[in-house]
Amino acid sequence: MTPIEMALAHVDQNVKTSLKRLFEVLRIPSISTDPAFNADCQKAADWLVAELKGIGFDAKAHPTPGRPMIVAHYAPKESTTKTPHVLFYGHYDVQPVDPANLWSTAPFEPTLKTDKDGVERIFGRGAADDKGQLMTFVEAARALIATTGTLPIKATFLIEGEEESGSPSLIPFLKAHKKELACDVAFVCDTNMWDAKTPAITTRLRGMVKEEVTVTSPSIDLHSGLYGGAATNPIKVLAKMIAALHDKNGKVTIPGFYDGVSKLPKETQKQWAGLKFSEKKFLGAVGLKSAAGEKDHTMIEQIWARPTAEVNGMWGGYQGAGSKTVIPSKAHAKFTFRLVGKQNPNAILKAFQAFAKKQMPKDAVITFSGEGEGSPASEISENNTFIQTSASALKAEFKKEAVLIGSGGSIPIVRSFKDILGMDSVLVGFGLNDDAIHSPNEKYNVSSFHKGIRSWVRIMSALAEK
Amino acid sequence: MTPIEMALAHVDQNVKTSLKRLFEVLRIPSISTDPAFNADCQKAADWLVAELKGIGFDAKAHPTPGRPMIVAHYAPKESTTKTPHVLFYGHYDVQPVDPANLWSTAPFEPTLKTDKDGVERIFGRGAADDKGQLMTFVEAARALIATTGTLPIKATFLIEGEEESGSPSLIPFLKAHKKELACDVAFVCDTNMWDAKTPAITTRLRGMVKEEVTVTSPSIDLHSGLYGGAATNPIKVLAKMIAALHDKNGKVTIPGFYDGVSKLPKETQKQWAGLKFSEKKFLGAVGLKSAAGEKDHTMIEQIWARPTAEVNGMWGGYQGAGSKTVIPSKAHAKFTFRLVGKQNPNAILKAFQAFAKKQMPKDAVITFSGEGEGSPASEISENNTFIQTSASALKAEFKKEAVLIGSGGSIPIVRSFKDILGMDSVLVGFGLNDDAIHSPNEKYNVSSFHKGIRSWVRIMSALAEK
Repeated sequence: MTPIEMALAHVDQNVKTSLKRLFEVLRIPSISTDPAFNADCQKAADWLVAELKGIGFDAKAHPTPGRPMIVAHYAPKESTTKTPHVLFYGHYDVQPVDPANLWSTAPFEPTLKTDKDGVERIFGRGAADDKGQLMTFVEAARALIATTGTLPIKATFLIEGEEESGSPSLIPFLKAHKKELACDVAFVCDTNMWDAKTPAITTRLRGMVKEEVTVTSPSIDLHSGLYGGAATNPIKVLAKMIAALHDKNGKVTIPGFYDGVSKLPKETQKQWAGLKFSEKKFLGAVGLKSAAGEKDHTMIEQIWARPTAEVNGMWGGYQGAGSKTVIPSKAHAKFTFRLVGKQNPNAILKAFQAFAKKQMPKDAVITFSGEGEGSPASEISENNTFIQTSASALKAEFKKEAVLIGSGGSIPIVRSFKDILGMDSVLVGFGLNDDAIHSPNEKYNVSSFHKGIRSWVRIMSALAEK
Repeated sequence: MTPIEMALAHVDQNVKTSLKRLFEVLRIPSISTDPAFNADCQKAADWLVAELKGIGFDAKAHPTPGRPMIVAHYAPKESTTKTPHVLFYGHYDVQPVDPANLWSTAPFEPTLKTDKDGVERIFGRGAADDKGQLMTFVEAARALIATTGTLPIKATFLIEGEEESGSPSLIPFLKAHKKELACDVAFVCDTNMWDAKTPAITTRLRGMVKEEVTVTSPSIDLHSGLYGGAATNPIKVLAKMIAALHDKNGKVTIPGFYDGVSKLPKETQKQWAGLKFSEKKFLGAVGLKSAAGEKDHTMIEQIWARPTAEVNGMWGGYQGAGSKTVIPSKAHAKFTFRLVGKQNPNAILKAFQAFAKKQMPKDAVITFSGEGEGSPASEISENNTFIQTSASALKAEFKKEAVLIGSGGSIPIVRSFKDILGMDSVLVGFGLNDDAIHSPNEKYNVSSFHKGIRSWVRIMSALAEK
């Protein structure tokens, strides 16, 4: 048997013990948003530190102004300057459980159930998000060390306890521990597979920049009878500006908006087409029928690879019951722009402001009060060697090509790793879309857990062979 | 001396006594919106009934579910079938006084002051709106009866006590007293002069119809990262619909919207041009510079003689502090349409609904929840004999042509008189734009009061001579 085969056999033989350990940490209600669970967060951190020490890591739960941050290092028995140093990220904190009455089992009494479809699942808060996932790389390390006496790579585990409450301590911590944490690459284990049989690596996350605007026309609210027809109405002005943001093909009309947006590589286009993503199912689930974005792009491109100009809120004038014959003085709107490729958040903001100002008629003034800051997209080339290595390892495990997918949202940790520690992130996770994270009856398939551990054994080994 | 000259001389000689009587009724805090002042409303009604009985009217304060309604009839000593029966309308209730601390004099202690400009003014709540105004026709009747022994016309005074609280009892009362109240014409004394030297008759009031819409796109609020680009955003949809309501020349684009809107008569156009209405002053006072309506109409036409499609409120998505990356399920807006000429409120509503529905893309549904009802414009021909007679009488008093003006707003009593009692209304009042009605330091110029009484003497006499 090769070392990998030995480690994989060990994983298979000990999966029940691995599950038992996962259940131990799932029983700790480490809810980070509610200070009532502070001691439980500490308990979960201490439990993980003890486990990691037990398998040979130099582990510590660092105090922060919030929940403890776990850093654990592993130095392999043998290493050269070529041995990669790899960071693995997960989080031990969980979401609150409410509405508690909708749970079929106790959220903090993890329960193994074989459903009618014959699939065995672990039910409990944190099963998928993220204790089940983070334990896949912990158990993989255990199996490799148990069977080969060492990890094949230099490893740093960073496991935070504030992911579900906005990670307030994360950026200061990364800055303060830059040297200790800067690795060749980070693996973030907090995402999903494409489906139960198809592994996935998320290589594209959109960036974002926000803005808030106020349009002021008359200096005071006016009577719509006495002034209606003559007075400029700021709601109409703002509505016109919003209407002007897109042309009839769904393109954003802000000059320069698409600077830095490159065409999707043919290969990726082909791979995504092969995903047979069900537009009908995705949109149908939320009461919609057809993709509303750029007509010359598929829906999957619209949400993974194309930028947006979105209105998240708008208000002005009278909103109460009945009616009020008013022409308001002001109207407001909140915008977010999702960014891709090399779009510069600051340039987008400036271009939008210039565009919006240009739309104002004589008697309307627009002011901007957004948060100003934004973050560019996080994209990792499909040709990146860590992506290639991981994809091969996943294919070996699942006997199926790993798909390189995008996500329309942003994962802040990925930006922080890039900006503060200068490293790319490879997003590999084993969750499924029906895991009900953040909801009652959260679950993680036993196969996700088992094949997740096996996948990390393969990835860690493959990284060493690079 | 002619009978008119005798009556006018009597008015002049007794103006101090007339003022004294006005002050008596101004001292009664007859605020109709606040039940704490119910007894004061009754007191004001009783005071007026006693006064009217005193000069020979058959007067009564009718109880209603709200405040008492005064009806007083006068049958002239001599009358023929040609003697006109004329209704005079005013209201004895007043607005609340808050903010009380901004008053320079006690609101219910009427005070005569000669300001620095040499103009004598009556300060107090109700001085202009409407006790000062209604007392002009009461005192005119007194003078005519005192000097000639009778009124030259059949007169009915209708003085309500709920005008400042939405007149809930008015329509049922008009319906119940249809026979008693249906006259040849109504004079409503609750409007303004063009300026202190120029009398005015308001001949045009715009009608109105309201609507409220909700646009629903996704069935639930969505994450703008995960769905942004693909999901239809109801705020954008509604904004586009609002933007489409007007073309670049300010015309409303709803098909059929201008049906029933006729061109302003050349003569009226000429008269309004002669008013030298200061657009700069009117709009400048509220922070605006230029008329925003139909480009081929003057500002005065835009507010007095042209219909509007106005948005009075709009809301959707997140409106709190900071940002929320949401694509909301719903967006809402409230609309009012001001109507002129023969525009049919119901037809306008239906045309708008059809227009709005047509603007919806595949994944948006619009629903309507407006109050449905509306009222057409109230317009009285410039050639109407009562208008002509009143204009001549006012010219005789002021030595200046009375201007026939419009008002962008609606005066519900005018519609009710037309719809229930089948009579036109002639709107003649002596208020000025700076009277501060509904505000602290409400005032009525002594000249408004004095010349107001004299004007009614002339109008009542002229009506008899028709």
